[in-house]
Amino acid sequence: MLKHNSYFDGKVQSLGFERNGRKQTAGVILPGEFHFGTDAPERMTVVSGELLARMTKDAAWVTYPMGSSFEIAGKSGFDVKAIAPTAYLCEFL
Amino acid sequence: MLKHNSYFDGKVQSLGFERNGRKQTAGVILPGEFHFGTDAPERMTVVSGELLARMTKDAAWVTYPMGSSFEIAGKSGFDVKAIAPTAYLCEFL
Repeated sequence: MLKHNSYFDGKVQSLGFERNGRKQTAGVILPGEFHFGTDAPERMTVVSGELLARMTKDAAWVTYPMGSSFEIAGKSGFDVKAIAPTAYLCEFL
Repeated sequence: MLKHNSYFDGKVQSLGFERNGRKQTAGVILPGEFHFGTDAPERMTVVSGELLARMTKDAAWVTYPMGSSFEIAGKSGFDVKAIAPTAYLCEFL
């Protein structure tokens, strides 16, 4: 079944599903800066719009345009920033 | 703001947003066959998985794998079918 997730007062929302035993979410990030922790490693793919991300507070922001992906290690976390509403696919690896 | 939409007893759900004055939704379709009517023309892009679609009841089903898109005329409708949970981006044109 589909699971509707809402974070940061609804500014980040996603729909969780599973295919071939793999968990994924399709979501949208509204303008703002957010921190997410990871349990499993994740791959984030920008589906519409553009995200900025950094793996640590000290790192420079990297811009990920539509169609590009970045991966996050398990048991860690990342900061993500959207200037305009942006859709993404998150795969749990 | 983000709008959470749920159709067909939650088997199709989407998150609606707007960028550059254009409405879009990021959504997920669970296994099944569904009919959607359109008001504005739409472009559907398969983000994860695979969809089958046909524009009329008489038409053959066409398979749209991940990364491919199809467009639907305004003031019409289409049938869509998913074998496994599939994520999509819908742009209102």
